[in-house]
Amino acid sequence: MKIGLAQLNYMIGDFNGNFSKMKAAIELAISNHADLLLFSELSVCGYPPRDFLEFHHFINECERYIQQLAEIAGDKLAIVVGAPSKNPTKDGKDLYNSAYFIEQGKIKYIAHKALLPTYDVFDEYRYFEPNKEFNGVTFKDKKIAITICEDIWDTGEENPLYRINPVEELAKHKPDILLNLSASPFHAHQAKKRIEVIRKNATQFSLPVFYCNCVGAQTELIFDGGSVVMNAQGNVVDELPYFEEAVRFYEILSIADSPQSIVISSDSIDHRLSNIDRQQDKNPTKLIHDALVCGIRNYFQKLGFQKAILGLSGGVDSALVLALAVRALGQENVLSILMPSKFSTAHSVDDSLKLLENLGSPHKIIPIKEVFDVYEKILQPHFENKPFDVTEENLQARIRGNYLMAMSNKFGYILLNTTNKSEAAVGYGTLYGDMCGGLAVLADVYKTQVYELCRYINSEREIIPEHILTKAPSAELREGQKDSDSLPDYDVLDKVLYQYIEQHQGPDEIEQLGFDEQLVTRILRMVNRNEFKRHQTPPILRVSTKAFGSGRRMPIVGKYLES
Amino acid sequence: MKIGLAQLNYMIGDFNGNFSKMKAAIELAISNHADLLLFSELSVCGYPPRDFLEFHHFINECERYIQQLAEIAGDKLAIVVGAPSKNPTKDGKDLYNSAYFIEQGKIKYIAHKALLPTYDVFDEYRYFEPNKEFNGVTFKDKKIAITICEDIWDTGEENPLYRINPVEELAKHKPDILLNLSASPFHAHQAKKRIEVIRKNATQFSLPVFYCNCVGAQTELIFDGGSVVMNAQGNVVDELPYFEEAVRFYEILSIADSPQSIVISSDSIDHRLSNIDRQQDKNPTKLIHDALVCGIRNYFQKLGFQKAILGLSGGVDSALVLALAVRALGQENVLSILMPSKFSTAHSVDDSLKLLENLGSPHKIIPIKEVFDVYEKILQPHFENKPFDVTEENLQARIRGNYLMAMSNKFGYILLNTTNKSEAAVGYGTLYGDMCGGLAVLADVYKTQVYELCRYINSEREIIPEHILTKAPSAELREGQKDSDSLPDYDVLDKVLYQYIEQHQGPDEIEQLGFDEQLVTRILRMVNRNEFKRHQTPPILRVSTKAFGSGRRMPIVGKYLES
Repeated sequence: MKIGLAQLNYMIGDFNGNFSKMKAAIELAISNHADLLLFSELSVCGYPPRDFLEFHHFINECERYIQQLAEIAGDKLAIVVGAPSKNPTKDGKDLYNSAYFIEQGKIKYIAHKALLPTYDVFDEYRYFEPNKEFNGVTFKDKKIAITICEDIWDTGEENPLYRINPVEELAKHKPDILLNLSASPFHAHQAKKRIEVIRKNATQFSLPVFYCNCVGAQTELIFDGGSVVMNAQGNVVDELPYFEEAVRFYEILSIADSPQSIVISSDSIDHRLSNIDRQQDKNPTKLIHDALVCGIRNYFQKLGFQKAILGLSGGVDSALVLALAVRALGQENVLSILMPSKFSTAHSVDDSLKLLENLGSPHKIIPIKEVFDVYEKILQPHFENKPFDVTEENLQARIRGNYLMAMSNKFGYILLNTTNKSEAAVGYGTLYGDMCGGLAVLADVYKTQVYELCRYINSEREIIPEHILTKAPSAELREGQKDSDSLPDYDVLDKVLYQYIEQHQGPDEIEQLGFDEQLVTRILRMVNRNEFKRHQTPPILRVSTKAFGSGRRMPIVGKYLES
Repeated sequence: MKIGLAQLNYMIGDFNGNFSKMKAAIELAISNHADLLLFSELSVCGYPPRDFLEFHHFINECERYIQQLAEIAGDKLAIVVGAPSKNPTKDGKDLYNSAYFIEQGKIKYIAHKALLPTYDVFDEYRYFEPNKEFNGVTFKDKKIAITICEDIWDTGEENPLYRINPVEELAKHKPDILLNLSASPFHAHQAKKRIEVIRKNATQFSLPVFYCNCVGAQTELIFDGGSVVMNAQGNVVDELPYFEEAVRFYEILSIADSPQSIVISSDSIDHRLSNIDRQQDKNPTKLIHDALVCGIRNYFQKLGFQKAILGLSGGVDSALVLALAVRALGQENVLSILMPSKFSTAHSVDDSLKLLENLGSPHKIIPIKEVFDVYEKILQPHFENKPFDVTEENLQARIRGNYLMAMSNKFGYILLNTTNKSEAAVGYGTLYGDMCGGLAVLADVYKTQVYELCRYINSEREIIPEHILTKAPSAELREGQKDSDSLPDYDVLDKVLYQYIEQHQGPDEIEQLGFDEQLVTRILRMVNRNEFKRHQTPPILRVSTKAFGSGRRMPIVGKYLES
């Protein structure tokens, strides 16, 4: 039996566009004499469709396009397609998250997802009823067990999140093959974890696994692809590329537990990687780099924009965003604006110009002093002789924001935000100033990781000038200002933030790791108090297990850890 | 038996503050010789605690304060307190949403919530395991059934959201009394709906119901109080006030189905309302007005701020926000900034001054022309001779935003945002301009409702000048501009928006209601395309069944209804 995996980049709600891609994959599978073609979770409508699922019209569109796919596959190919399906009973939520098994142009079986992730960025129980009935489907004398994403992830750890294990239930029917349709978003350690989870299922139930993920970014969420074929012994037969579309085919020679039970079909369209567990590609810094490039590129592509703009300060964050944007969009499509103030150091402009030269990317210099002086003059009578304070710092940042948005509006550029995760965490940034933008590229990347990514980019040749990487970070909004005037050293700050944000450790637990009590208290309070700023940030490309945004939902008004 | 309801205004995570309020209620109950005192859902930590629930430290704090409450109640009073509790088994989510029944200073029983709302603004399955076991608790020879909020709301309609009805399960134990601990957020028709739901439960199971809601705003969510005591015949014995704290006591004379089975105790602290189903107080416009005032007041109180600032344009939205803010914070605590441009009409300033005079509230006038001219001069060389367009309109709005934020930063005011729901829906507003602010007061109020609220405020005497209510709406950002140049009439627009946003009607369904096909397509596209703007708006006071914000989760990048 020949099975294909279609790892595609869908667009949410773009039924026609998604259909075209799936049609091409079906035609390829037919011309390759495949028997069965597997798509990813909710492929017909794109994942995550969020509240569009609450519209009958949207669900009806899903059904309509499933019929069209069935017609195209016809009697030549069986397909497994992810889409919502209507709950036929009156009780419970109106929808299931389903996989349609289509054979001979007809819906032969609809498998529903049992484990509905409702944590972090996931809201599936908001929409779907969990499946309670488990059956296999027979195809060409083989019994096939169909699962959807999370269904294979609750692998009997000490503290399982769910009360049933769908694969265990399905195993009672003695299947020959396990399929999984996924929409599993990227974080830096996901690729490694995914192989482990698939292996646990394959070996525990002695089943070959065909795991099909989607690829590409959906605003904040980046899907890394990396679909997997594994034999029943837990060996990786193949791993599809990361951050790229791919359709590949596999011949099942025997179901027996032999290493050669499944081979990559010679008809597969892309042979450069095969039969390996690609550890060398799983370096977290490389993966984050590739994910961010993918995130930028897809955001622009899917919105139909070509050009980006950003404020280039001479600091490391904007330097990194520029380098990433140039890789995502092309050097000619990223316009940098240098906006020196009277507090800017000479090297800020020099360093930026060096970087721009290295990248061959255009720029403009628009100083902010003159506008700032007029603001000061006009606001002076209303300021009641109060001294220079954060007001004037913010005002400078906001003038820059205005310049950038004006250029963005005039020429149809999208403004890239350069805030990093450490700043976003403690509120070290100006709302409507440097916190402007259509997409926050680095707001899930800690400052210390920003440096790692720069070093990674510089690994072949110097792109980001060394001086940008060695000078002390500064917002340059007042005389001689340094980040370290108001923030702990990033080395320490990032470690405490990681424990609080990613690891959900409270003050006691963080102190027990050896951090100073007062420092921990101060940092945690800064994080909590700045929820109001994060509420208004642009969407943030997610690369960690806990990003700001929909994955971390905190009260804006509250008093936890305040007293 | 004497039962008390403590309808209190909690603060999320403020364990000490919440404890003080609960302690005072317990002491009052003891001095009134009550037998049992009922608090609301998750009262110990405040509702909704959101992801704070993922911190062990937070859960341990809840447990610690429950012990303290138990000590205070001691052997004089039984209390029912809402708090999270740890799931004692290893399977499933780590927490339950629970009601602690505490008698003789000890936890006698912990009832768990079975129906976990996970839709609209609710995320309860994100945190909690649903209860599957139902028992009553015996207290002074009475069998008491304890439910939490949603548990009584799935009242066997045609299409129930859940597969079990907790009250039906509890009824098998033949309880004498039904308690419900709620944290049920306000919308304009909630007070009426709540009585209906409680009546359905009371009459279906012939049970008197003691329903205790919390009160006060938690950022976007406004809890209206309105706790209810109902006898087994479905008669309202009492309804606690809306938008105010109250503690009241009730004597159960008999459990029999007689109208006089429950009476308000003469010891209750507040007698002005009793024994009535207050239909006259359930006028939606009045309720929305009161909710918005409560929302503003609590936002400031809980953040520890006294003073608000806003931009007063001469239009109806900012006029209404000013009037509401004056009611919430006091006339001296709201500073209006008038920021005329060269496109402003003379009446804009005149109308605003008249309104300010009516309210006795301070103002400043800071024109934007001079700053705008400098921006234009500096940006001109970069604009490549492109004509005046939305760029310049936005720039004016952003200068105003800068003025307001500068005053806010310098003096510690919170900026009130004046965007209405119709504008927010179609993206008729400037990011970082008029979309700035700490709190969006009207962004869940359609333009047509804005007028209704103004008329309501003017019902006794003219506060908002008539001319503001009769002139054509305009942003005044270009010569002779009117909203109607780029938007459909608000009468039509709001109806289509209501169908799409609140009623989840798709294009076909809305057209079938008699709206023009092209108009519907145009409006729905505007709504979808402007998700990126709404992503960056301030928190929005929720007064409808479907507000922008956490209650409506839409993809930012997508293509639904585009082609």
